[in-house]
Amino acid sequence: MINPFFKNHGPFNIKKILELLKVNYDEFPIQEINNISDLNTATVNDITFLHSKKYIQIAKLTKASFCITTNNLKSHLPNTCSPIVVENVLISTSQVTAKFYPTSVNDDFDDTVIDINEIENLNTVQFGKNIFIGKNVSIGSNCLIGHNTIIEKNVSIGNNCSIGSNTIIRNTLIGNNVKVLDNCTIGKHGFGFFPNNKKNLRYPHIGVVRIEDNCEIGCGATIDRGSMSNTVIGKNTFLDNQIHIAHNVKIGENSIIAGQVGIAGSSILGKNVKIGGQAGISGHLKIGDNVEIAGGSGVIKDIPDNSKVMGYPAKNIRQFLKDNK
Amino acid sequence: MINPFFKNHGPFNIKKILELLKVNYDEFPIQEINNISDLNTATVNDITFLHSKKYIQIAKLTKASFCITTNNLKSHLPNTCSPIVVENVLISTSQVTAKFYPTSVNDDFDDTVIDINEIENLNTVQFGKNIFIGKNVSIGSNCLIGHNTIIEKNVSIGNNCSIGSNTIIRNTLIGNNVKVLDNCTIGKHGFGFFPNNKKNLRYPHIGVVRIEDNCEIGCGATIDRGSMSNTVIGKNTFLDNQIHIAHNVKIGENSIIAGQVGIAGSSILGKNVKIGGQAGISGHLKIGDNVEIAGGSGVIKDIPDNSKVMGYPAKNIRQFLKDNK
Amino acid sequence: MINPFFKNHGPFNIKKILELLKVNYDEFPIQEINNISDLNTATVNDITFLHSKKYIQIAKLTKASFCITTNNLKSHLPNTCSPIVVENVLISTSQVTAKFYPTSVNDDFDDTVIDINEIENLNTVQFGKNIFIGKNVSIGSNCLIGHNTIIEKNVSIGNNCSIGSNTIIRNTLIGNNVKVLDNCTIGKHGFGFFPNNKKNLRYPHIGVVRIEDNCEIGCGATIDRGSMSNTVIGKNTFLDNQIHIAHNVKIGENSIIAGQVGIAGSSILGKNVKIGGQAGISGHLKIGDNVEIAGGSGVIKDIPDNSKVMGYPAKNIRQFLKDNK
Repeated sequence: MINPFFKNHGPFNIKKILELLKVNYDEFPIQEINNISDLNTATVNDITFLHSKKYIQIAKLTKASFCITTNNLKSHLPNTCSPIVVENVLISTSQVTAKFYPTSVNDDFDDTVIDINEIENLNTVQFGKNIFIGKNVSIGSNCLIGHNTIIEKNVSIGNNCSIGSNTIIRNTLIGNNVKVLDNCTIGKHGFGFFPNNKKNLRYPHIGVVRIEDNCEIGCGATIDRGSMSNTVIGKNTFLDNQIHIAHNVKIGENSIIAGQVGIAGSSILGKNVKIGGQAGISGHLKIGDNVEIAGGSGVIKDIPDNSKVMGYPAKNIRQFLKDNK
Repeated sequence: MINPFFKNHGPFNIKKILELLKVNYDEFPIQEINNISDLNTATVNDITFLHSKKYIQIAKLTKASFCITTNNLKSHLPNTCSPIVVENVLISTSQVTAKFYPTSVNDDFDDTVIDINEIENLNTVQFGKNIFIGKNVSIGSNCLIGHNTIIEKNVSIGNNCSIGSNTIIRNTLIGNNVKVLDNCTIGKHGFGFFPNNKKNLRYPHIGVVRIEDNCEIGCGATIDRGSMSNTVIGKNTFLDNQIHIAHNVKIGENSIIAGQVGIAGSSILGKNVKIGGQAGISGHLKIGDNVEIAGGSGVIKDIPDNSKVMGYPAKNIRQFLKDNK
Repeated sequence: MINPFFKNHGPFNIKKILELLKVNYDEFPIQEINNISDLNTATVNDITFLHSKKYIQIAKLTKASFCITTNNLKSHLPNTCSPIVVENVLISTSQVTAKFYPTSVNDDFDDTVIDINEIENLNTVQFGKNIFIGKNVSIGSNCLIGHNTIIEKNVSIGNNCSIGSNTIIRNTLIGNNVKVLDNCTIGKHGFGFFPNNKKNLRYPHIGVVRIEDNCEIGCGATIDRGSMSNTVIGKNTFLDNQIHIAHNVKIGENSIIAGQVGIAGSSILGKNVKIGGQAGISGHLKIGDNVEIAGGSGVIKDIPDNSKVMGYPAKNIRQFLKDNK
């Protein structure tokens, strides 16, 4: 389950969903829909979506009762799944997700917060001045929380963590022995929307940020939560200052990422990855285990395990240095 | 009028201005000077400046009564405009601008702010904890303002805007339906000064930042106000996290700018521009409409409409990918 | 003396230090050790370390009584200095430094701070709302301190300084006429640790940040304090927004550094250096006086005085532009 925090406002009758999508619903069986999920995790009485040929094999096995898709793709769905044909699958999916999870679209300030001094059972937490805590927040034992920090709603912090000052966190699961330094913004929605010439349409972000045990997050980090999956920083991974981690990114354990690195949406990095300062990684890439990326590099394609790369576009480091003697 | 906020401390007698510039004033008609403006917008009884051959055609038409310029350029001014010949036009212009607008030079913290709870007529504004508001601030209806945010002096916010937490704004005009996320610093002076081996000399910034309707500004943005013109973010343009926009930059409408991009001073971008993460644009460039700049690129020359560029220096994207196979 | 702030918890008997390092101590003279320092500054009754052939000439002259080193290097020490042979010199040095300076390892929030309104003798300091000041802080005359700013422990600020809002400073010496803008984090430990697959081991940072007279530090800067030496920003050097300066970096006077530049640990820059936006400098480099580095460049080797470089890897600017026509 990717989403422990956002409240599902369903079930909704399929008729209501079809109205929203402006699809004629006479031909559909009338029933209640519990949730929207991806092809893989959807179960009976859920709605899912299929927008690309890449997912045909997974689509054939989906247990969802309905699937938002196109005329070209609908034939790949099993008989148990009724296709809902729309013009733009992602926009329609976004609209339905927003119906189930209306609070996942915008990230206005959390107006549920109260002064930390009014919270009970924080005996072993040491904290600074002017700290506010939102609803649905838990903080483990022996934690430290710095001045002016705001733990907005939907945050779980493990034991022995040190959170810095001027930091804002929401929709985030933090393990044990984690350090988050000053001026960070963690758990906001990602930079995901459908461009529209009058007013861009935001899509919902129902994922969270998960920061595993023993991690350190440097000053000024921005780590966006996932849209349909989570953003993950693996165990014992250290991030230097001013790093940007976009939505759905997953970084493996024991990785070391130097200052001002940026990782675009949905890229997945293995474990023991080392990235030099100011390097950038494009979206939707797969970076293997034990990969080393030199500082300042721009990675625009997948990198296999155990590679060392450099340059823009990043290539084998020996080749790069030879080409640039 | 580029400057709705900074108070003009003029008029000043031309004699006082010439004294400041250490120019002999016996030969000049004695009169009051109302303002300092660029060649184009200056009117009778204003002072202007001409420092480069590039502006000779505009200079010939200026209505200003006086012009700070060099011996080589003075012959291009109309008879109605008396040249004031100096060694360094920009430094002298800076000194005169600072005389008219003394509060535009430094950006010390705003000591006029008061607690938002003490402000009346904010009925439809929802706000968080510990918010301070400066003089000459207006906030439209149905706005949200997050915790620890400081709206310093000289800010106008339209309707239905959402301002995040830990954000600082001054000298800024914000339209309707604008989102500014957390940890932003908007409206500070730009990185503009005259280097001097003992103590650099700051030049005044009398422009503002203008953020038009439906824009979104990501976390950790720094957007500097203009020096002699404004910094502008066009309608429905979205900025991702950790972006730096320098003084006098103008970005057209419906543009999409990914994380960690930096745009140097005075560059002008068209509409429907797309810029990938970590790309940089040098100062004083013109980027056309519908231009796409790949992530990580470094743009060092003008880019015509409808181009797609990549690399450093950025060039045609097909050529770049071919050269870097 | 590099470290005016961190309290030395010594002296310690050499026997205790050897126990910590799991080194057999029967062969060593029993004595008290006052401090740990580098080869150069260590005096009699201090302990030092030698981990690389690069420092053999300095090692021969050290006055330290003990030296953490390897079997291969120990022969280069003078007779007055007893070698302590370990497997990993830097890890052992880190352990001993942490013993002498236990508070230099972690940078949890400063729980000693009190409201600035409770502090006496700040007559000439103007300050905003919600400001907290730690122990061992001095502030000169005619200073300004913005809202929500936290001056944590161990900070000295000279006269006529302007500190912005939402800024956090600790372990820092600031000269006169310095401006630090908003949202900065200055004086935190650097990104220095020994990777370990279970839990990385932080090494101590006993240096400070020193910002000399007339400097300006832009919004959103992160400047880390030094580990065994100081991080230094030279006189009259100006930094634009969103700059990252790592631990032990030293920047000479009269330098100009544009937005989003990053300088990795221990690099040393001369005076009158100009660096364009988004450029990056690798660690442990020497950049000469009067060097100009074009925006977006990636510097990975030393640069001699008076050079102009561009590209990644950065090379002579004329050559770069010729190669990239």
